[in-house]
Amino acid sequence: MPEEPKENEKKGGGDVQPGLLTEYLTDDTGFFVRSRREFEHFQSPFQAVEVHDTAPYGKLFRLDGHFMTSEKDEFFYHENLIHTAAIAHPAPETALIIGGGDGGSAEELLKYPTMKAVTLVEIDLAVIDIARKYFGAVHRGALSDPRLDIKVEDGLAFVRSASETYDLVVLDLTDPGGPSEPLYTADFYRACAARLNPTSAMTLHIASPIAHPDRIRAGVAALRAAFATVTPYLVPVPLYGGAWMMACASPTLNPSYLTPLEVDRRIAMRRIRDLQYYNGDVHRASFALPNFVRELVSAA
Amino acid sequence: MPEEPKENEKKGGGDVQPGLLTEYLTDDTGFFVRSRREFEHFQSPFQAVEVHDTAPYGKLFRLDGHFMTSEKDEFFYHENLIHTAAIAHPAPETALIIGGGDGGSAEELLKYPTMKAVTLVEIDLAVIDIARKYFGAVHRGALSDPRLDIKVEDGLAFVRSASETYDLVVLDLTDPGGPSEPLYTADFYRACAARLNPTSAMTLHIASPIAHPDRIRAGVAALRAAFATVTPYLVPVPLYGGAWMMACASPTLNPSYLTPLEVDRRIAMRRIRDLQYYNGDVHRASFALPNFVRELVSAA
Repeated sequence: MPEEPKENEKKGGGDVQPGLLTEYLTDDTGFFVRSRREFEHFQSPFQAVEVHDTAPYGKLFRLDGHFMTSEKDEFFYHENLIHTAAIAHPAPETALIIGGGDGGSAEELLKYPTMKAVTLVEIDLAVIDIARKYFGAVHRGALSDPRLDIKVEDGLAFVRSASETYDLVVLDLTDPGGPSEPLYTADFYRACAARLNPTSAMTLHIASPIAHPDRIRAGVAALRAAFATVTPYLVPVPLYGGAWMMACASPTLNPSYLTPLEVDRRIAMRRIRDLQYYNGDVHRASFALPNFVRELVSAA
Repeated sequence: MPEEPKENEKKGGGDVQPGLLTEYLTDDTGFFVRSRREFEHFQSPFQAVEVHDTAPYGKLFRLDGHFMTSEKDEFFYHENLIHTAAIAHPAPETALIIGGGDGGSAEELLKYPTMKAVTLVEIDLAVIDIARKYFGAVHRGALSDPRLDIKVEDGLAFVRSASETYDLVVLDLTDPGGPSEPLYTADFYRACAARLNPTSAMTLHIASPIAHPDRIRAGVAALRAAFATVTPYLVPVPLYGGAWMMACASPTLNPSYLTPLEVDRRIAMRRIRDLQYYNGDVHRASFALPNFVRELVSAA
């Protein structure tokens, strides 16, 4: 059990009205979604688990009161978390996901015809059970793919004791404040870096450059302490409240060098299907940082 | 006075808690900002006017319960509404703003050294008064610039009876539903098109492609009925709830043809200062549309 109070409790938050699921971005601003029905609400050994039915997002998944994923919106997050690095890798064969028990990241990785083995390390079995029961639209069968090896374990311990390397590593975590707190440190990033090949890459989401400038600064600095090449990028994630920063960290790989034409060529050659967001143009566009974000990541 | 119920009333909205200023994006989702203090709250002849002090946005301006602009956030909206077209124009000398009584668009236009005359047509004097009193951080003196001609008039009537043409036209309007409702039609867009030179361009904001796909379809179709060249683009506007679509409409001008290098060169040559968002990279990036948005605007 996490000893820290939950993020929403710290913020004095909680839902602003009964039936309005609420996410605070800061103490003073946030957003909400109306729940039509609560399918699940229980405490796992690690966190509070909820599933709701909503009009704008379809089925919606919360952990410790934070929006995690949803049927209609998951493509913003999962396509951008996976393809930005995966398309830049010459031929990814192995991948490691830390977190990601909803199966959405696994599904995007398994779209690659070269992909042979994906290891998913999720600390909370409840997340996987909930995904199997409610979020077929997110994992689309990936949780039963024979190439996927699911380990219900602590990601931190797994990475520290692992000896294998992977072509792609994905940190698909809850925000800091819950069980994933120790996974947002330069120490953990160094342990991840040791699991990469020279052309491998790790991707992760960081925070909102608007609501959480301090988290962006600290996150990028911690990554730079562990990796030679850190490429921040910016994508809209409506369920997280808008523009969200992700990063690709690698010994050598910088996905911003790919032209839109080359990205589109690779999407076609590798027959990556069912992309609701990602294409060559938005790949390149994601690396374009507004002036205030440039300052934020260069100060890091 | 508008006869229609206000948008927020239609939505069964209003603030979700006392002190939490609330914007509904749809009936079932929206966002909120905590008010620390209400400076103003009155009914003008056209709309309900409010000014609040908030932590995330500084001073914040609402009309009919909708967020309009704020001290800390206005640059997302105004820089992208103005520079995307203005930088593409060879040497803009004249501009017409319909709405925009806060002066933020005028301020960005007056940054161009070639700009000789900007006409601002705002229907509601109260908006200009409020801007002068509270939003110096938005207009930065532009409302007193000798090159600015402020007309307190109905923009629809002004455009229909005008005979001049302008290098840049900017529709800086409230969302449909209030007094600006008739300004979201192909008819009005045709009247605007008649006020353009061959290399002129008009810019406007449309809606959220995520929350309002129907408005995007209808808006782009209405623009295409009136202009030969319609270039939609996508920018984050936190105060409007995230990814927001704008468009540049022109007889000939397509700003997406400019390279980032050329945009940065023009920013330097024209000495455009104080840009918190806009640069050559984000100029190009704004035209990159995710697959689901491509479908939305190609179906239009």
